[in-house]
Order: sequence, then structure tokens, then C-alpha cells
Amino acid sequence: MTTKRKDKPIRTDIGWSDATSITLFGKDLPSEILGHVNLGDMGFLELTGRLPNAKESRMFNAMVVTLVEHGMTPSAIVARMTYAGAPESLQGAVAAGLNGLGTVFVGSIEGAAKMLYEAMPLRDDKPDNKAADVKAPTSATSKPNIKLIAQTIAQNFQTQARIVPGIGHPIHKPIDPRTPRLFELARETGFDGPYLKLMQAIADEASTLSGKALPVNATGAIGALCCEMGFDWKICRGLGVMARAVGLVGHILAESRKPMATEIWHSIEARATEHFR
Amino acid sequence: MTTKRKDKPIRTDIGWSDATSITLFGKDLPSEILGHVNLGDMGFLELTGRLPNAKESRMFNAMVVTLVEHGMTPSAIVARMTYAGAPESLQGAVAAGLNGLGTVFVGSIEGAAKMLYEAMPLRDDKPDNKAADVKAPTSATSKPNIKLIAQTIAQNFQTQARIVPGIGHPIHKPIDPRTPRLFELARETGFDGPYLKLMQAIADEASTLSGKALPVNATGAIGALCCEMGFDWKICRGLGVMARAVGLVGHILAESRKPMATEIWHSIEARATEHFR
Amino acid sequence: MTTKRKDKPIRTDIGWSDATSITLFGKDLPSEILGHVNLGDMGFLELTGRLPNAKESRMFNAMVVTLVEHGMTPSAIVARMTYAGAPESLQGAVAAGLNGLGTVFVGSIEGAAKMLYEAMPLRDDKPDNKAADVKAPTSATSKPNIKLIAQTIAQNFQTQARIVPGIGHPIHKPIDPRTPRLFELARETGFDGPYLKLMQAIADEASTLSGKALPVNATGAIGALCCEMGFDWKICRGLGVMARAVGLVGHILAESRKPMATEIWHSIEARATEHFR
Amino acid sequence: MTTKRKDKPIRTDIGWSDATSITLFGKDLPSEILGHVNLGDMGFLELTGRLPNAKESRMFNAMVVTLVEHGMTPSAIVARMTYAGAPESLQGAVAAGLNGLGTVFVGSIEGAAKMLYEAMPLRDDKPDNKAADVKAPTSATSKPNIKLIAQTIAQNFQTQARIVPGIGHPIHKPIDPRTPRLFELARETGFDGPYLKLMQAIADEASTLSGKALPVNATGAIGALCCEMGFDWKICRGLGVMARAVGLVGHILAESRKPMATEIWHSIEARATEHFR
Repeated sequence: MTTKRKDKPIRTDIGWSDATSITLFGKDLPSEILGHVNLGDMGFLELTGRLPNAKESRMFNAMVVTLVEHGMTPSAIVARMTYAGAPESLQGAVAAGLNGLGTVFVGSIEGAAKMLYEAMPLRDDKPDNKAADVKAPTSATSKPNIKLIAQTIAQNFQTQARIVPGIGHPIHKPIDPRTPRLFELARETGFDGPYLKLMQAIADEASTLSGKALPVNATGAIGALCCEMGFDWKICRGLGVMARAVGLVGHILAESRKPMATEIWHSIEARATEHFR
Repeated sequence: MTTKRKDKPIRTDIGWSDATSITLFGKDLPSEILGHVNLGDMGFLELTGRLPNAKESRMFNAMVVTLVEHGMTPSAIVARMTYAGAPESLQGAVAAGLNGLGTVFVGSIEGAAKMLYEAMPLRDDKPDNKAADVKAPTSATSKPNIKLIAQTIAQNFQTQARIVPGIGHPIHKPIDPRTPRLFELARETGFDGPYLKLMQAIADEASTLSGKALPVNATGAIGALCCEMGFDWKICRGLGVMARAVGLVGHILAESRKPMATEIWHSIEARATEHFR
Repeated sequence: MTTKRKDKPIRTDIGWSDATSITLFGKDLPSEILGHVNLGDMGFLELTGRLPNAKESRMFNAMVVTLVEHGMTPSAIVARMTYAGAPESLQGAVAAGLNGLGTVFVGSIEGAAKMLYEAMPLRDDKPDNKAADVKAPTSATSKPNIKLIAQTIAQNFQTQARIVPGIGHPIHKPIDPRTPRLFELARETGFDGPYLKLMQAIADEASTLSGKALPVNATGAIGALCCEMGFDWKICRGLGVMARAVGLVGHILAESRKPMATEIWHSIEARATEHFR
Repeated sequence: MTTKRKDKPIRTDIGWSDATSITLFGKDLPSEILGHVNLGDMGFLELTGRLPNAKESRMFNAMVVTLVEHGMTPSAIVARMTYAGAPESLQGAVAAGLNGLGTVFVGSIEGAAKMLYEAMPLRDDKPDNKAADVKAPTSATSKPNIKLIAQTIAQNFQTQARIVPGIGHPIHKPIDPRTPRLFELARETGFDGPYLKLMQAIADEASTLSGKALPVNATGAIGALCCEMGFDWKICRGLGVMARAVGLVGHILAESRKPMATEIWHSIEARATEHFR
């Protein structure tokens, strides 16, 4: 005989429901949320515990919309091939596609945000800052020397032969066409703060050091904007995950209409096993 | 020696990119999409190939926002427990949570939409209707007798001892508080068409037949709205998948701040193995 | 204020552990399992609650080994592409690959087993038959007319224009080379019972009816063997899932040494977007 | 107009098939593998490119069998809750469960192997050592001072306030009952080489330094055995993934017979939202 285990308290602050109501982040879902906010605003609510104002809504929606779709990416190919084998489980096909959004393909958002926060900690990183007081950093703190910080970062990465997250792009050259638009929206909404400046300065320094054009790419811009909005760096990858889920549903619909998974399979198999034949 | 395989053509109409541009559904991503649309609109674009007008945007965003979050659901518990074991992979935790959005928990959207379309086929279901001509059904077709159709459906399900998808709720009684709000928004946006009426009529008939209150629940309302918007029934589950991805990122953030996964594990293990001790 | 919820009992019979011991299916893991059984036997233990005898071990291991690896299948391509994007999560890459083992690619094991059980129910399908009394069906029950059953099945499928699960193969013609070997092992181990005969008879009848060679394929043979072993039809897909997990780890190792994911991505993207260029 | 992309060669050495044959790692699947090897041997084949001898087979099977099942773990809870929501997709439930086998729950195998290899590199880590010449390290290389290496490692971890992977266990105290059995099997099969000794020495040193009993746990023992077998450290987590896939199929079968997912859901939700009520 053993003594019975004593439960420890667990607690969610996100929300709850009973017979007649559903409350999320202190708001009544039917009357205070439905019809008032869009899907991106709902994402902002999940990350901050409060609804965005008009400027925050515009900026945050642009950030996630940027990440929804980029054509025939690995995540799209994976979702399509999974759906072809298991059409009973659309959810499994989306899940499979999301599994690849890691350090290589979307993680540079996280990498950029972490790099920027560590180089320039402008706010107290309280463990429970998921509240209305999350705000863009102000210059009230002693003004950091952005050019100097950027030089140090670029040199450190070069010395360690590491790739700076959030700059350069294999296809989009000399600039990533999403970046100027995201910066423009940042100016319009007041999010063109110190982290955007630092991200840009790092790209400039790295370009100078390497002698190659290494402009800020979309994930670098979004990572910097995450810092402006005060998101935890470890959740920044989540913007890519929530956004791409939307895009993958579109690819599965397309696959159901114009299938390509079987042809991908057979042509890849033929190429990869040619030496055996 | 074998003859070399000849590739068959494959084709995506979703979009593509080159060095200086990204084109999605015929639109330039930076200049025509970013800053102009919200995340829900982007979902509508993925499902229809065109951007929504203001009423469509309002209705579609309300549909997906409804599905983002419902507190400590199985998908949230799964995502949190997965994150606790593999914090290096936020994407894997979201993927794990999405895998459970199947026939039981979200599939009733799909089940309701399929039931409604099959009972009342109001439009040509062309294989490639992903275009600007997707529109709400009109009464141009011979007017269906909604009450009669609903009676037939309710009786068939009862005879076969099957559960009608989209009605009743284990917690929300006597009504699901989300449904009246979704119906209200449908009236405001002009989506209160024949499929909503049929869904309501089926719930009324099933309630009469069973002698229990079986009101339209949120997934029934959303399934009917999917029909009004002309979505393929087999993609309707996708609205729940894209929406819940947003909510699960929020739960992972919450888990990183106030962890509960380990306590869930140990308390469940203790309860399930008590007879051994 | 609400009354506190009263927990209902939950119970696992699989096993439990305390400070000094781990007990699984009534056996002490270190002393009674480790070093005594192989991984396939452990799978048999999970499905039946008891360890296999020598013949069962040989047959069951051959069944799962058959399903481990088939070269560059969709599941392998998916696992490799997922790993390329998220090398921090080998587990996520395997999970992604497994998600595609559904009704199309592995489900025919399940489909075949379900078809065979329903056509010829030779044992009581008690809800809790996970016990030592699971045994191969005996002819003690009134002898079924296998040829007649097979004719009925083949005709029904033809009439409904449905594909008989477990027969025919797109690549392996005129026979699937795994099938004769699995049948041979079934004879050696005493598992060549009525379900194997019925599966073979169905293939013969379907071939006659269609005028094409439609031999029993590997999943048909394994589905029939699952029936001989008395497994629930709804778990038969699980043999493919546990087996392919082993193979996908091998593909991820291979991808880490000779990567092909990026080339697959770029070549597929180029082909699928050629019409845009 | 753009120049058409030129494909780069891709190549798998794992295997291929044609109309009448399936060849894996140079062996004919039906005649040379089926009926000759068990599922664990097949895993060894995937990781080394060759079949194990009798001792390797015994040791490797014990390693993976250790990881199949540990009762109501987070991965089992996740798989059961996922299956409850999406019973159409057994594969998705297993995939969800596997997603949590990361740095916290199974990664210590990987962490231990990496730590041991880096501290004591006994073989050339050639990129393509997946061949018959993979063998246990010999003392031909200059004999390392295991006690000294262990002291350095234990002190470094303590100085950095990091947890040594592969030692200690929250439940199994003072020793993990799987470890002595794995060490015993290592002696019987000749795998009790320098990496096992180093792992043990590290545990001893860490125990001395901390003043607590920190014995080698199962993942530490398996990590050390992976080194003895010459596996890449980055694939060691894969042993846990392939093994647990087997166990999760068993949990899903059990869930289908004695469901507990709904009770877990409701009881956790009630506890986590009590403060709202």
C-alpha cells in the first residue's frame, strides 16, 4: 500500500467555458470577440493577452500574412505528399508540413529576435509580461549605440564563421521584395524602432565585411518587428507556424484538384535509384 | 539497362517567385497583399483564389476566430505535453496538437457541410471552382423544400442510430453561445442563406424526434456557412486546423511561463496505475 | 460557486513503475524482457498482452520487417524534407513521414483484414480479447465455403466499382515478390489458415472477373496474417506504422550524409512553376 | 523566358525495386531478409548498412526494447488523446506521440553519446562510415585515462551548472533498474567497452561532486552503447523514436478498448480552470 499522490495546482489564464458562456483572456467570445476581430488579431491576443490597436493590428497581420505562402516550398510538398497517402486526415497533412518549419526554414525569425534582444535588452524581460503593458521600447533607457552594436555582432559572426540570422536570401537578390514593404508598414504604424534599425545596421555591416550584398530578408524583418512588439524570442517561430498552417490548407485543396504528389514520388524515386538500374 | 522515365507535367497555380518578386494568386505579395489584408482574408484567398469583399471578410474571419481557442481542450493538452518533452521544436508541439482535430473534435464541420451539400446541391460542383465566380447560392434554382429535407435527414439519422453532425453539445446547454452570434453575423453579411436555414431546420426536427434540445452548435453553424461560401466539404475541416494552429501557439507560450505538463503527466499516471500499487 | 467535479476512474493494464521496478504486461522488464525478446516480439506483446512463441515470433517479425523499408517512398521523401528544414527534431521528421501512412499507402492492410473478418467471422470478437487465449482460428466452427465467399466479395466490389484491398500492385507485376515468401513462412509457422486461403481465393476470383492479373500483394498477405493472429482490424495499420518508423530513421541518417531534400525542393518547384516563367 | 533548370544528381543507397524484386542494402528482401531477421535487426541494418551478428543482435534489440514502453508517459497520453479526437488516423496519433520525444524525454541518449564521443574520440568519424567496417573501438589507439576524462566532464558540468545527460532519474532511485541489466548484457555480448566505462565513471564523479546518488540511467547506458556500436550521435535519438512507435500502437489499442482520453481532458480542464468558477 502506498500513500496517495497529492495533486499540485495547475492553472490556465487563457480561458474557460460553462453551459452558457465562453470567456477568453477576460473577454466574452461571442459578444466581444466574434465579428470584432480578424484571425491575425486573435493571434496577437494569444501572444499578448490583449487585443491590438489599429496600428498593431495592421503591422501584426502584415507580419503573419507574409509567412502564409511562398509557393512550392518543402512544407507544401510535404503536406501534399502526406495528403496523397492519407486523404482521411487533412489535419495530419498540415501537421506533417508544419513539422519542417524549424531552425533552417523559419527559425531565422527566432534567431534574429534572440540576437537582437541579447545585443540590446531594452526592456525588463519579466516572466509574465503577457499583459496590457507590453509596448514598443522607448528611448527613455540610455540610448544604445546601434552602429557599434551592429559592428560587434557582424564581426563576431564572421570570426566564428557563423551565418547571421535574418540576412541574405538564396533566391531574392539583391533584396528580398518583402522587406522594404514591411519596413514601410513599420514606419506607417510606428514600429520602426531601435530593433529595426539594429537589424538594418547588422545587414549593412555584414555586407561590408563580406563584400557581398546581404540585405535584411523577410524573416529578419519579422524577427526585428517581433522585438519591437515585445514578443518572447522563443515564441517568434510560432508566427511562421500559425501562418503556414493557413497556406498548407490551400495547398491541400489544390492537391485535391490538381494532384502532383504521385508524379513527385515516381520521378524522385526514378532519379534517386537510377544507378541501380 | 532500362529506358529513362519521362516526367509528367506538374503545375501549381498558387504562385511563384523569382529574384525580385513573389506572386500569389495573381497578386504581387508586397504591394497588393501586405498591409491590405488580414490573416483571415489570406485564408479566404487560399480557399477561393480571390480576396474577400468586406462582408465576406467579416463573416469568414468570425468563422475561423470561433475555432482558435476553447481553453484546455485535448489539442491544447497535447501541444503542451509535447512541448514539455521537446522544447526545441515549437512546430512539433503545434503539429501534435493539430493531429487530433479529426472526425470527433472538428470533423463535424466537414460532416455538417457534406450532409447539407448532399441533401441540397444548389450549385454545380465543378472540379475547378476555385475562382472569382464562387458565390452564395441563389434561389434561381428550383426552390427546395427545406422543412421536408430536414425531416428526411433527421429521420434517416434516427433510423440508422447515427448522430447528426453539427447539433447538440456536451457542455453548452441549452444552446451553444457561439451559434446565435454566428447567425447574427450571417444576417448582417448576407450569408443567412438556404444552408443555414436547412441546418437550423435539421436541428429543430432532430430535437422534436428525440425529445431533447439539440440546437445547432458552433461546428454546425460553421459547416453551414462553409456551404453558403461554396467551399468543398472536404476542406471544411481545414478552417478548424488553420484556426487552432493560432491558438496552440498561445498555449505553448503559456506553458513556457506556467508549466502544467509535468503535473498532468504525474497525476494521470498515478490515477491510471493506482490498482497496481 | 460550483460543486467540484468528481474524477472517474482511469486504468492502464499495460504497466507501471516505482523506484526499483518496471512491470510491463505482468512481466519484470529488466529480468524477464530485456535480453530475452527482440523488437518485433515486443510489438507482439503490445498487441496481445503476451510474448509470442517461436513460430509466432518468426511470422510476426517477418510481417513487420516487410513493411520497414521500400526505398524512396512518399514517407521517406517527407521525412527527409522535414529533417532538412528542422534538423533539431529527428522525432518530428519521423512523425511527418508516418502521417502519410493512411488509407492509400498502408491502409490496405486494414482494409484487407476488415474485409476478411467481416466475410468470415471465425471467432468471438470480444472487446477484451487482449489475452493469452488469442489463437489461430480452428476448423471447429462450421467450415466456411471459402470459394463461395470469395466469389461474393469479388462480385460485390466489381458491382460497386470499388478496388479490392490487398490485391494488385502498380510496380510489382505479375506478382508481388514479398507475397510468396510470406505465404511460405505462413506454411512453416502454421499460419496458413482460412484467412490466407480466403485472401488468395479473392485475388483469384477478382483476376478472373477483371481479366487482369491481380495477385495478393504484401499488404493483402499481411492483412490476412493479422486475421490469422486475431488482431483487431482497426489496429492492423499499426504494423505498418511501427515498422516504417524504423525505416524512416534510416532515411534520416542517409539524408544527413547524402542530402537530397534541397534538390528535390528546387527541382519540383521549377517544374511546377514553369508555366509562370 | 528563362533558361531551364538543370537537375543535380540525387542518390539513395538504401534500396530500390522493380517489377519482380526489392533490394535493400544489397540484399534481396524476400529471400535474404524476410524470415531471417527480426525487427530490431532491421533497425540495425538501417543504421549500419549490414545485418548484425548474434551478439550485436542481442545487444541492439535489448537497447530498443528498453525504450518501447514505460507505461503512462507523456507520449502515451498524447497518442491516446489524439486518437480520441481523430480515430480515423492511427498514424497521426502515433506521430503526435513521437513529436514529444525530444531533448527532455529521449534526447539524453543523444546528449550522452555526444558527450562521450567528444570526450573520447576513438575512431575516425568518416562521413560515410555506414558500412561493414563499423566496429567497436579497440584499445589499439593510445589508451585514454577514463577517470581523468570523467573528472573533467563532471567538473565542467558542475561549473556551468548544467545537468550531465544520462545520469539520475526522478522516479527510479537509487538506481535505474534497467541499467544493471543493460550492463550485464553488454558484458555478455562484448560491448562493455571504454564508453560504458566512461559513462559509469562520469556518474561516479558527478555523484561524488554533488553528494547525491546520480547513477547511470537507461538513456545514459543506451547512449554509451550507441558509442560502442559506432552510431552517429545525431541519430541516437532515433532508437527511442523507432522503439516508442511500437509502444504507442499498443497504447492506441488499449485506448480503443478502455478509453481514458475524455476523462483526462475533463479532469484536467476542471482543475486548470477552477479559479474561474
